[in-house]
Amino acid sequence: MTYRIVGMETHDIRFPTSRELDGSDAMNPDPDYSAAYVVLTTDDGFEGHGFAFTIGRGNDVQTAAISALSPYVVGRDVEDLGALYKEMVYDSQLRWLGPEKGVMHMAISAVVNALWDLKAKRAGKPLWLLLGEMTPEEIVGLVDFRYLSDALTPEDALAILRASEPGRRERIERLKAGGYPAYTTSPGWLGYDDDKLRRLCKEALDQGFTQIKLKVGADLADDVRRFRVAREVCGPGFPIAIDANQRWDVASAIEWVGALREYGVHWVEEPTSPDDVLGHKAIAEGIAPIAVATGEHVQNRIVFKQLLQAGAISYLQLDSARVGGVNENIAILLLAARFGIPVCPHAGGVGLCELVQHLSMFDYVAVSGSMENRVIEYVDHLHEHFIHPVVIDNGNYVAPAAPGFSAEMHAASIAAHAFPGGEVWRDQ
Amino acid sequence: MTYRIVGMETHDIRFPTSRELDGSDAMNPDPDYSAAYVVLTTDDGFEGHGFAFTIGRGNDVQTAAISALSPYVVGRDVEDLGALYKEMVYDSQLRWLGPEKGVMHMAISAVVNALWDLKAKRAGKPLWLLLGEMTPEEIVGLVDFRYLSDALTPEDALAILRASEPGRRERIERLKAGGYPAYTTSPGWLGYDDDKLRRLCKEALDQGFTQIKLKVGADLADDVRRFRVAREVCGPGFPIAIDANQRWDVASAIEWVGALREYGVHWVEEPTSPDDVLGHKAIAEGIAPIAVATGEHVQNRIVFKQLLQAGAISYLQLDSARVGGVNENIAILLLAARFGIPVCPHAGGVGLCELVQHLSMFDYVAVSGSMENRVIEYVDHLHEHFIHPVVIDNGNYVAPAAPGFSAEMHAASIAAHAFPGGEVWRDQ
Repeated sequence: MTYRIVGMETHDIRFPTSRELDGSDAMNPDPDYSAAYVVLTTDDGFEGHGFAFTIGRGNDVQTAAISALSPYVVGRDVEDLGALYKEMVYDSQLRWLGPEKGVMHMAISAVVNALWDLKAKRAGKPLWLLLGEMTPEEIVGLVDFRYLSDALTPEDALAILRASEPGRRERIERLKAGGYPAYTTSPGWLGYDDDKLRRLCKEALDQGFTQIKLKVGADLADDVRRFRVAREVCGPGFPIAIDANQRWDVASAIEWVGALREYGVHWVEEPTSPDDVLGHKAIAEGIAPIAVATGEHVQNRIVFKQLLQAGAISYLQLDSARVGGVNENIAILLLAARFGIPVCPHAGGVGLCELVQHLSMFDYVAVSGSMENRVIEYVDHLHEHFIHPVVIDNGNYVAPAAPGFSAEMHAASIAAHAFPGGEVWRDQ
Repeated sequence: MTYRIVGMETHDIRFPTSRELDGSDAMNPDPDYSAAYVVLTTDDGFEGHGFAFTIGRGNDVQTAAISALSPYVVGRDVEDLGALYKEMVYDSQLRWLGPEKGVMHMAISAVVNALWDLKAKRAGKPLWLLLGEMTPEEIVGLVDFRYLSDALTPEDALAILRASEPGRRERIERLKAGGYPAYTTSPGWLGYDDDKLRRLCKEALDQGFTQIKLKVGADLADDVRRFRVAREVCGPGFPIAIDANQRWDVASAIEWVGALREYGVHWVEEPTSPDDVLGHKAIAEGIAPIAVATGEHVQNRIVFKQLLQAGAISYLQLDSARVGGVNENIAILLLAARFGIPVCPHAGGVGLCELVQHLSMFDYVAVSGSMENRVIEYVDHLHEHFIHPVVIDNGNYVAPAAPGFSAEMHAASIAAHAFPGGEVWRDQ
């Protein structure tokens, strides 16, 4: 059913998170979590919401990039989101600004995700269920296979999706009943002192999380001390991951992780540049059997393809709002399934938990068909600004029931955090 | 000597090149060559000019990204361009928008290059000579070695630069006397018919060029016909390169190039996604001994490092205005020297020839010390808009003598091509 997009508005929304050192890590000492936010409206009264997540300065540039996409959607009759996605990605003039990376690609992500929010609302279903009920052929039609055919063809994708068709209905019911497992990064920000770390680790256990993650990479002695605190609270064998946020070169990553090895490291995340496929591979070989995870800054499916081809990662951490939105993330889920690598998405920021839960649940229903060895990151920031915030129950994401992509923020939150005119910023 | 930047202005400049199909290729059918242009002014009356090259839509976003860097330079006392470059690259909040890729990185490139234009003008020297007279230690101080140490350390870089110190003066004189060899892409745009191709090939030979390049990848039968026309005019053995502008996947690249093999292909450029290091490697193995070249869309030194580590390219085609400006390009020249791969820069667009000649000449003077197997791309568009346009003499770039980075456009050209208000656009 066709409908027409008749309007696009954008908002530069920033939260002053640097005041509390929430979100502080080895490369990002003082983020102000922000959203370059877009609202699409239709001729029959629906709204689609989406956003790119940034950490402060530059959110104006990101918002301008989203506005530049207005001619591609406003006034358009929308039917096939696969075609519209490719039209934006392959606009030859905009493509020069990437291709398929950085500010322009994140802008496409925001618009594509808003289109999916709209589509799911119109269908009266949460996005994970809308996607999870599509036929394998429909899903394949959403994917751009360009540059993937040496690893994944449309035929490969169809085979993966068809193999998962039996049991879809049972998995949907299982999600509705029990949700999807989460891990929490909330204890581990670098800016927190040991007492706060200890208290938050204890809370994470009490809340039923089955994995935590600590930020590392600023100072080795601090990291050892903090890891020992966490291990002491969580007990032997409890999965504790570490996250270096791109801090190291290859040799220093191997050395640093080696110094933490004896305390039991579940995975090391973003040990080096997200662009360095061969570096990740060398690190993976140098720290085995400790696992390497990455993805929150991986720019597109082409880099993920190579990380998988090279055997450089044991966990793939897709991000809901950096690559080209839902469509490119379906390609990434299919790639991961093809290589048998579990997807444990990045979340946190502003609204990334809200979005990404839909992708993992879709993966469970229709792609990998498995929750084994899989967890979705959870960070307890800023959910109160969303109309349908994530719900965590005993360490699990509760399957969203509301129609849409859980992307919509309260109008009052948007107004208060508008930069620089909103009330939160006016008094600075 | 310290000086203060007191102002930054930006301009969205676009040339309506799509009207003539100049610059048309398999992925870019109708570019409007554009510059997101920046002018820095100092407290003592100097100006530094720089720009990011784009091909039309989105040039406003690119210009906005440059403006976002204003707080990092305006009001600043400038001394060490190595430090200032790193300060922009490592601003943690802006970094989230890349890191080191796409719109934000190209914005840094424009500002860094403007700072170098300024520095060279103040020194009263063309940039290639200013850089070519720096000590190895000074040059190493300009480079960010982060993420490179598995391939290139500061000590490696010093060794390369010291090895090239003897003979610098002779090479400077040789450049002043004879210039640097060029090849031309002007005959080969996809939008040109066979008669125009034939005429332009003939002109290229008459003008003394020793290599040409044809755009390919839209239609194989057309490519075969056009290549045969070019071969007929240029004669057997004359180097004819082809450029697919990212058109293919791995298997189709190998197949397509194979079909042209019998006519003698010098190199194939951008056979696939610039992000696909492993894809380039597979293509290089599949088409050997035909060489693979790439770089104009390679986002930063980290991807170049991997292309070299993987043995995926035989020619490295750096671009003067996509990676982080002069500083990152010095890192890339050092990487190429470390791996013994010749640098044959990308040029064309708006002002890319003007800029990149300085980098190749610096490479010859102080890094590789060689012109062997090296040519700078030349395209005969839009030079008339520059105050110090490139000069080609018998197929060679004449060494620039004017102080600066040859980046400055005529004020009248800036005004006429301002988008959308300039006279060139007003009548559309």
